[in-house]
Amino acid sequence: MNGAQSLIHTLVNCGVRLCFANPGTSEMHFVAALDSVPEMRAVLCLFEGVATGAADGYARVSGSPALTLLHLGPGLANGLANLHNARRAGSPIINVVGEHATFHRQYEAPLTADIVGIARPVSSWICESRRALSVAADAARAVQAARAAPGGVATLILSADAAWNPAERPADKLPDIGAATVNAAAIDNAAKLLRNGRKTVLLLRGAALRGAGLEAAGRVQAATGARLCCDTFAPTTELGAGRVPVERLPYLVEQAIECLAGVEQILLVGTIPPVAFFGYPGKPSRCAPEDCQFSYLAHPHEDGAGALSALADLLGAPARSPLRVPLLLPDIPSGSLDVAGVTAIMAATTPEGAILVDEAITSGPPLLQAMATARPHMHLAVAGGSLGQGMPAAVGAALAAPDRKVVCALGDGSAAYIPQALWTMARENLDVTTVIFANRAYAILNFELQRAGASALGVGPKALSMFDLGRPQIDWVNIAQGLGVEASRATTCAEFADQYRSAMQQRAPRLIEAII
Amino acid sequence: MNGAQSLIHTLVNCGVRLCFANPGTSEMHFVAALDSVPEMRAVLCLFEGVATGAADGYARVSGSPALTLLHLGPGLANGLANLHNARRAGSPIINVVGEHATFHRQYEAPLTADIVGIARPVSSWICESRRALSVAADAARAVQAARAAPGGVATLILSADAAWNPAERPADKLPDIGAATVNAAAIDNAAKLLRNGRKTVLLLRGAALRGAGLEAAGRVQAATGARLCCDTFAPTTELGAGRVPVERLPYLVEQAIECLAGVEQILLVGTIPPVAFFGYPGKPSRCAPEDCQFSYLAHPHEDGAGALSALADLLGAPARSPLRVPLLLPDIPSGSLDVAGVTAIMAATTPEGAILVDEAITSGPPLLQAMATARPHMHLAVAGGSLGQGMPAAVGAALAAPDRKVVCALGDGSAAYIPQALWTMARENLDVTTVIFANRAYAILNFELQRAGASALGVGPKALSMFDLGRPQIDWVNIAQGLGVEASRATTCAEFADQYRSAMQQRAPRLIEAII
Repeated sequence: MNGAQSLIHTLVNCGVRLCFANPGTSEMHFVAALDSVPEMRAVLCLFEGVATGAADGYARVSGSPALTLLHLGPGLANGLANLHNARRAGSPIINVVGEHATFHRQYEAPLTADIVGIARPVSSWICESRRALSVAADAARAVQAARAAPGGVATLILSADAAWNPAERPADKLPDIGAATVNAAAIDNAAKLLRNGRKTVLLLRGAALRGAGLEAAGRVQAATGARLCCDTFAPTTELGAGRVPVERLPYLVEQAIECLAGVEQILLVGTIPPVAFFGYPGKPSRCAPEDCQFSYLAHPHEDGAGALSALADLLGAPARSPLRVPLLLPDIPSGSLDVAGVTAIMAATTPEGAILVDEAITSGPPLLQAMATARPHMHLAVAGGSLGQGMPAAVGAALAAPDRKVVCALGDGSAAYIPQALWTMARENLDVTTVIFANRAYAILNFELQRAGASALGVGPKALSMFDLGRPQIDWVNIAQGLGVEASRATTCAEFADQYRSAMQQRAPRLIEAII
Repeated sequence: MNGAQSLIHTLVNCGVRLCFANPGTSEMHFVAALDSVPEMRAVLCLFEGVATGAADGYARVSGSPALTLLHLGPGLANGLANLHNARRAGSPIINVVGEHATFHRQYEAPLTADIVGIARPVSSWICESRRALSVAADAARAVQAARAAPGGVATLILSADAAWNPAERPADKLPDIGAATVNAAAIDNAAKLLRNGRKTVLLLRGAALRGAGLEAAGRVQAATGARLCCDTFAPTTELGAGRVPVERLPYLVEQAIECLAGVEQILLVGTIPPVAFFGYPGKPSRCAPEDCQFSYLAHPHEDGAGALSALADLLGAPARSPLRVPLLLPDIPSGSLDVAGVTAIMAATTPEGAILVDEAITSGPPLLQAMATARPHMHLAVAGGSLGQGMPAAVGAALAAPDRKVVCALGDGSAAYIPQALWTMARENLDVTTVIFANRAYAILNFELQRAGASALGVGPKALSMFDLGRPQIDWVNIAQGLGVEASRATTCAEFADQYRSAMQQRAPRLIEAII
């Protein structure tokens, strides 16, 4: 057994069964070892950002880490932006980054780079694994680190000779570092706050927005009348009919401030005080009123769902909140296609249990609004704000939940960051329907230019050209077909309704370019 | 005048006239300021790797830095791999990376990241520019740092409020930190070494491989019989008929060792001792014989071209080397297309003065061989070994030399890293002909798997699937058309010859998928 084999066996022992790979020469022994460990599945990606974004999507849907296999510093660099998103989402991920053999590192061969330096801004744990005999131990610690609440990015830098030299037995799984229990005093304190008569918001994130956590939050609301809110880009949420309703803070800081006007205290559950996405001249950064009091019911690494449940019990809350999102499906509109038409058709047609990966940017808020009362589904947001997450995360989501329909909603600007993910969808025959909201512009920037006050000096043609994706027009049908995915274009509501309905009925990758 | 305007005026004062941009909200004041400075051209890129790779290509062809405009830490991260290549090439580049407003940084908004940490592994100079009044000074220093010999990546992190707050006058250009003159003692020493009767190689890089530097190297060779060699991935070389011939070290370490067998001393001109691209089990890393003596005629930051010229004078070399590459154009082959057919047709048809951006990987050595005696041209290699450089560098090369034909030779694997560059070619109507060597595999890895000894345990289907790009087949004609570039496919030599000849005659972007 060589180091690579002991590494992969250890990862399997630790519950990691899926590897998103874009390997190179320094990873050849890892690649060769894959066949000796049947439990490890390897999914090839054309670009490293596909691998890291897919690992994020997989982690968010399954709760478990996947592996990425990346080629030295530059390979890690290509995956870095989606690791930034994963870090913000608290997604457990293990990166195996190949490195030159230990004896080769000193010579400054062309691909030599400061891998630790590249990894540091996104990783909660980094290890340079240089000896075959200790690779297994390092891998077990990597999985433990990635899974440590609230979930993090663990980067194991694997020297080529640590992979090819003889190794010993694989290592076993280490105990999980689960979410810490919130102590009774903190629960008591929260209960007291909720009874003090002040206008209160529970700001939720993480497990508090899913399953038992969300149900417990609903009970607290039922007992106290406190509002339930979540961050604009709460990474993973369960939405739609039958769920406990949660207000999502608007993207625009002015609207977020209005949403929180009059709020006197905010109990934070797995999140931090709400803040504007960007700073603007003369606008505040914080969304809550100046004199609003913050209290942590649960820090991100703590068991927010458990704390909410204990809090509900202490408050004598009913066993189940009566407040539920109703099922309200819009009528299928007609006429030429626009954002309202696309979102209405998606809301009316998307099946129960779907996973909606949302990188629709300017079309995102209307999509969220339309989907709010649709059939129950899971929503994945761009947690770190870095574009290019949508299609890769859809790849990971589809592999985590092969029996669920994945819908990937993208702006044409955001879709252009990492379209290579379509190829992996085709290769693995993933059940993903990608909808491109094609407005042929970076529409968000046109809007932000005004908001930032940057247009005060006048807006000229050079500035406007920076938001224009219409010269030339991107043909998404061509691109998808070029990458092996069936695709079509819709310019009317009837066309989009037909195409989307048929996509919901098939179980294969599909792309629809919706001209809006 | 605000900070952004003072920044752009300063950059123009310092000779920087081109900005490869993928901006976001934090860069809106920079974007708005573009129209107030007519001398600064802005070229929009769909992905940040296009911007940084284009800046590298521009720098290599023009010798001058271009600007990139990137959106916070994740935007920089997406451009990082091509900055790695640029760093290895010694290409001067100035990154302007937008950052949150100073007052906003503390709140951990989603896009907040350690920008300095991300920049450090690729940057020779980093500055966090936080005050509008000093942005101009910082920009002048950034240009000076980027241009300092041998050229580097300067990263200026621009806080949004430093862009929008009132500023003072722009700054003027600072003196260039040019290549240091090699002193007379070092020249004397080199002359002595060249007369000691040992088998000698001059290993050249940088200015020593172009124009006057290459001519001077030829004179030294003519006077002494020393061999002229260059690194496998020498970033920028002038090749073809009429040029002083230089032996390129082979990619394979075994062949490189054979090439340097018996060499007793190597004079380094702007480079470091030659090293294998990767380390392999049981194979050496160094390409030169164990007892070979190294001597630096010029370090990378020193004036290698000037040193060679002084050395030639001291040696009493002839004014011009008689050794010249002959013009030998291959016949146009017929039959079904293969690598030999593609490279022969390219060699026979590519016009004088073309710029060949070479990321053809396994097809690269035969292409170099075929082009060696073709019409004189410039060759750009993947200096840092990070794939995804080809098409972006072609964008920059075409903008640096609008009157020259740019040919971009890619493997289908390497082309899949950053195909978005095609859109910028179409948008700017750049005279780039892209040739995809479509073997539908990561062929280099199949090969490296054997070489690394990783196949000793047997090669299984999972490993082999990691090199297979044929499932599904990528349709490059579709992808190019989707991004606005005219495209065609060739499966016979006659088809490729027709298509390539017509591409050489037009002055617009064009892609040919050569099925090999």
